[in-house]
Amino acid sequence: MALQTSFTKLMSVRHPIASAPMGGEAGGALAAAVSDGGGLGLIGAGRGDREWLTREVGIARRATTEPWGIGFLVWAIDTDAVALALEFEPAAIMLSFGDPTPFAQRVRDSGVKLILQVTDLDEARRALDVGADIIVAQGGDAGGHCGENGIGTLSFVPAVVDLVGPTPVLAAGGIADGRGLAAALTLGAAGALIGTRFQATPEALVSPEIVKALLDADGQDTERNHTLDIARGAPWPHRYPARTLRNAVLDRWRGRDDELRSDTTALQEYREAAARGDLNVLPVWAGQAVGLVDSIESARDIVTTVTTEAEQALTRVAPR
Amino acid sequence: MALQTSFTKLMSVRHPIASAPMGGEAGGALAAAVSDGGGLGLIGAGRGDREWLTREVGIARRATTEPWGIGFLVWAIDTDAVALALEFEPAAIMLSFGDPTPFAQRVRDSGVKLILQVTDLDEARRALDVGADIIVAQGGDAGGHCGENGIGTLSFVPAVVDLVGPTPVLAAGGIADGRGLAAALTLGAAGALIGTRFQATPEALVSPEIVKALLDADGQDTERNHTLDIARGAPWPHRYPARTLRNAVLDRWRGRDDELRSDTTALQEYREAAARGDLNVLPVWAGQAVGLVDSIESARDIVTTVTTEAEQALTRVAPR
Repeated sequence: MALQTSFTKLMSVRHPIASAPMGGEAGGALAAAVSDGGGLGLIGAGRGDREWLTREVGIARRATTEPWGIGFLVWAIDTDAVALALEFEPAAIMLSFGDPTPFAQRVRDSGVKLILQVTDLDEARRALDVGADIIVAQGGDAGGHCGENGIGTLSFVPAVVDLVGPTPVLAAGGIADGRGLAAALTLGAAGALIGTRFQATPEALVSPEIVKALLDADGQDTERNHTLDIARGAPWPHRYPARTLRNAVLDRWRGRDDELRSDTTALQEYREAAARGDLNVLPVWAGQAVGLVDSIESARDIVTTVTTEAEQALTRVAPR
Repeated sequence: MALQTSFTKLMSVRHPIASAPMGGEAGGALAAAVSDGGGLGLIGAGRGDREWLTREVGIARRATTEPWGIGFLVWAIDTDAVALALEFEPAAIMLSFGDPTPFAQRVRDSGVKLILQVTDLDEARRALDVGADIIVAQGGDAGGHCGENGIGTLSFVPAVVDLVGPTPVLAAGGIADGRGLAAALTLGAAGALIGTRFQATPEALVSPEIVKALLDADGQDTERNHTLDIARGAPWPHRYPARTLRNAVLDRWRGRDDELRSDTTALQEYREAAARGDLNVLPVWAGQAVGLVDSIESARDIVTTVTTEAEQALTRVAPR
């Protein structure tokens, strides 16, 4: 059996799964393991640190001969970052959170596939306009940064599919097992982009303490907020809050972002605690499907298991 | 072809669809049309007005011989309401938003099926404890009242299924077409409870102006809020906000619920405008799948179409 889609064909991969390019967490080892398992692994180059990216690409190249890609935060990069990435000859470049227009043509001219992540219908229209090869429809269930008014993934994916079809759509947000992948496919997506699940792997650059927090959490333990970005001094555009596990900082400052912004003592305290690696204050990125993550598995096995489960789910409910 | 599930078997209905018992909007005509189409129609008896319920049950009985049910708001009813409902011999009673414990045994003793709607995992555990025959997992995509921290339906449904299985689960929130029903089934649900889609029917007790607003809206035009309940003076428990279309009142009062609560002039103005039926101020209940609703169809046809589309979606993505 196989789940062939427009995504698997376009990217020449065996399974309709991509791993989210989680900045700093999705290094070369994770991307390679996902690709080797038959998905599309994406290195999370975030703001485009050259040294980090060069090292992680090296790791990926040594570990797999399958296609892999590189993801960036659009708001944080310049054309040099994209130029460097293209030199590494990835199969795809994924751009998220911001206007991809300045970079789109360059990626397309190189022949590398352009994946654009969108968080609302306006972004989806723009992604189509600038020539996305694949559009990631990220719903409000997603962990990490997401759209301010992100609507639930179940509601968002079909709306994007209707708007951008036949461009392949990957569903992102709330998918951590084969049932979720199967649901994404029935909604009209050509696959799923999975983040949180791949944090609980030996290959992800995620500390054991954070993995433990993820294994212990349910979806209702997460919260979409600007608070931790304000506390960290992270210059994210306001329209992209982040979903994290609830923690002591959120409990203290919920609804008081402006106050926190101007409280230099509190900010100083936060940064000292963060520098010590205090998990009571650091953001633990997690999507609403975190409750389905209850074991550490190799990323390669996750790709296989999720695919097999999806096939089983689809077979189980097939009309007869 | 047919989509047989534990829900269709338990309720002796042909299709795995229930219509949400939208208070005051889901009268006997809508419930009967849904049931006649092969789903389970639920009359929205809300706070349990005897006269309204008696009339609407009469309408349903004259219109169909198929099974139908009655839904109540738990926080607003007493045992008399349930006793009256049981006299009407519905196939099911659905209880939402509050602790169903005082009513559960009485429903079960009568042999009428007990459907309990839950908005988080604690409520799901309680529903199991009091003996629910069917559990509706309402995710944050839902329109109308919903859980304060309701997580996206795509994330919530598998978590509930894992917790309460083999009790049949209906997925609610964000489902308006066959793709959504198919997704619900692959997530492990035994069917879907659909609300917003059934508002745009000739059978629903919804004004043409509100239907037009729904047809024109996208999911990102909705907003979860307490504001309109405060303005209306509706005594909903704080843990259940409502998702409505964005409107002028929300734009004016967003983030200032406490201020609105004590502004007697503003409240008076609101109530006067509401009494005039001013759609700029009245709540228009809508889920995040409202973007998929773009035509008025008979409820009976919706049941058939959604089922057929779901079968097609599942056939389209079946592994091969």
